[in-house]
Order: sequence, then C-alpha cells, then structure tokens
Amino acid sequence: MRLQRSDLDSLPRRQRAAFINCLSGYKSANLVGTVSRDGQPNLAIVSSVVHLGANPPLLAFINRPPSVDRHTLEYLTDTGYFTLNHVHAGMVEAAHQTSARYPRDVSEFDAVGLTAEFGAVHPAPYVAESRLKIGLQVRDIKPIELNGTVMVIGEIVEIVLPDQALAEDGYVDLSQLDTVTIGGLDGYYRVEPMFRLSYAKPDCSPEKL
Amino acid sequence: MRLQRSDLDSLPRRQRAAFINCLSGYKSANLVGTVSRDGQPNLAIVSSVVHLGANPPLLAFINRPPSVDRHTLEYLTDTGYFTLNHVHAGMVEAAHQTSARYPRDVSEFDAVGLTAEFGAVHPAPYVAESRLKIGLQVRDIKPIELNGTVMVIGEIVEIVLPDQALAEDGYVDLSQLDTVTIGGLDGYYRVEPMFRLSYAKPDCSPEKL
Repeated sequence: MRLQRSDLDSLPRRQRAAFINCLSGYKSANLVGTVSRDGQPNLAIVSSVVHLGANPPLLAFINRPPSVDRHTLEYLTDTGYFTLNHVHAGMVEAAHQTSARYPRDVSEFDAVGLTAEFGAVHPAPYVAESRLKIGLQVRDIKPIELNGTVMVIGEIVEIVLPDQALAEDGYVDLSQLDTVTIGGLDGYYRVEPMFRLSYAKPDCSPEKL
Repeated sequence: MRLQRSDLDSLPRRQRAAFINCLSGYKSANLVGTVSRDGQPNLAIVSSVVHLGANPPLLAFINRPPSVDRHTLEYLTDTGYFTLNHVHAGMVEAAHQTSARYPRDVSEFDAVGLTAEFGAVHPAPYVAESRLKIGLQVRDIKPIELNGTVMVIGEIVEIVLPDQALAEDGYVDLSQLDTVTIGGLDGYYRVEPMFRLSYAKPDCSPEKL
C-alpha cells in the first residue's frame, strides 16, 4: 500500500491520528513527575522521550501545545525540575490512566494509585513503583512553531536504579527491569533481548557481544 | 543505587555514554535514507526518531553535530527530502553496519547489502527490504545549542506499508511487521504485544481493547 499525503488527509481525524502515531516506530514509556509551587504533585505519561547527548547528559520530550495541557509544562517551568520514571509491565494500567484529564487540585499519583517519592537533590517527585528514575533540571524549552508543541530539554542530576541493573560497561538491559515500550497512541508491548552488536567499522561485519 | 551528577562525571567516557544512552527507555529503530545532489545514496541508522504531531504529520530525529557526521544532514538539506525505514529483525546486522564511517563516495546501501528503491513523489531513497517506509520533506532544522546537535523535522509526504498492516481504526501493530526496538547504543530487542488500552477518562479505569 502506497499512501500519499492526500490519502492521509482524507482519513477521519481519529484514524489518522492513530495511524501517524504508529509511524515513528516503538516509543519509550515514561512518567513525567512534577510539582507545583504550592506542593501539588503531577504525573503524566509520555512516549516522546528522546536521548539528546551524553556529555552533558541531556534528555528531551515533546509536550503538547501549552494551551491544551498546562500542568506538566507549568510546574516544570515554575520549579525548574522534573523526573522521568520508566514504566514496567506491572504498572502499565496506572501509567496509562495518568493521561485522563484530572482537575488541577487532583494529584494523578493519588488518582491512579502510584506513590510520590521525594529526594534530597531536587523538588520533583519520583514514582516509587518505577525501577529506573531520573531527576532532571530544565535547561531549555524549545517552541516547535510548525504545530505549537514544545521540546523540553532536561539535564540529568540524579539517577535511581537497582544495583544489579548497571553492567560493568555502562549498559542497562531494560528487559531485566521489565520496562515496556509503546506503539501508537495506546499499544503496550513487552520486550525480549535479541543481542548487542559491536561498534561498527567499515572493514568488518558487526559481532554479537 | 542512587547516582548524582558527580558520580556520572567520574565514569570513564565510554561507560558513561553507554549508560546515558540507555536512560531514555526503548528507542525506535529506523534507517534514514538520503541522496546527494549528484545522486550518491546515503543510509544511516538512527534511534532518535520521535513523533511530533499528526496534523500536519510531523516526525523528527536528532542528528549529531554537523562537524562530526556530515553526509545525512548535508544531503537532506541539499535535496529537501529524506526517508525513514523501519528496521525488522531480519535486517538488524545490516542496519547496524550503516553506522560505520564509510568514505563519501561509498553508498552504505552497497556496503551493507541493502537495496535503494526510488519512488515518484520525492528524490530520497527507500530501503527495499524495510516493511514500513516513510518519505518526508524537510520542514525545519533546529539547532540544539546545549550540545551542538540538531533536530531535523520532516513532514510526511508518502507512506509505504503492507496492505494488511493498517487496521480499520488506523492502528499499525509493529510487532506484526517484526519491527525491532533499540536499547542503549548497541542493544536490539524483539517486541511482543501486551494489549491496547482505551482512551483514559477521569472516572473510569482503562479497558483492554
């Protein structure tokens, strides 16, 4: 099947959104934790977290237009910090439920049954149930003029994970933590390791590590 | 284990890069296809493709600093188009091998044994072996000043996929296409569907679709 732009434009709005959301490939599954100036915790699932670079250690995510979805963006702007918390198979339903539109005075932590956990390094709440948690300082918020979204860039200030998850060479096998991946708007997937491959060089084939 | 920024900074450079690259969660596995002005095809694996929005249909990826890795960025800038091609389990080694640093006059298609396929809508080459292929027009290239990378934003102009892959409601089950996901710098994973969940509303729990 070969679809041109006009075919896409003729799809009903929901169908089109479901389709386009599948096209980037598998997505990371993270919960963004923030807290308001007056101490109200907030939690939202995001599938758009992307690695920007290791030095300095930067991650980013795409946030919907500020007019639509204000709390996460407002709180991380106000406090300067947010957390990212990997979603594992046992917490998928609760994580998904954070995408419901709760009123401002409701904490999604309470509403979906997850536990806010605070550390000493920054004010943003972690999700206690998550097995890999990252605290980040907001470094930039880039407007994407083409559709009104923004890219929030954070610099890692803290990482919390099980001792045995971090291998000697720095690798973290996410499948050991049962971290899930997302397809499209609403598909959740488990993951099985295939192999790791050696650093690619022009004159030899990659080897399985 | 609770690592602060100073712990990260004390890790050896490679170990640190391997570790930080694992932290965003699972990554999409795509090959970026481009062609130079004088017809030289180029292919590069990327794990940073992210969905920006469905209307207009926008995808983006992060490209390393222009000084380090020139061909992809140069060619897509020159021609105004690029393709994204999902990597399935049967083509992982070839896809990984595109990350070797080949000289400018070598096509990675030839070097790794993948086939360039051209369509009628735009000049950029697809990967014939891929099962889900997307043609995009460059819409913006945003510099990320914090580390010198750039975010390339493309608008979808064509999608090529098997007829049976697209469900009535717009969903594409990527596991049916055997699309893989990436962990860290060099880990490849197969994916198994868990379930889809209904649109979340404050007053009810999500249902499995």
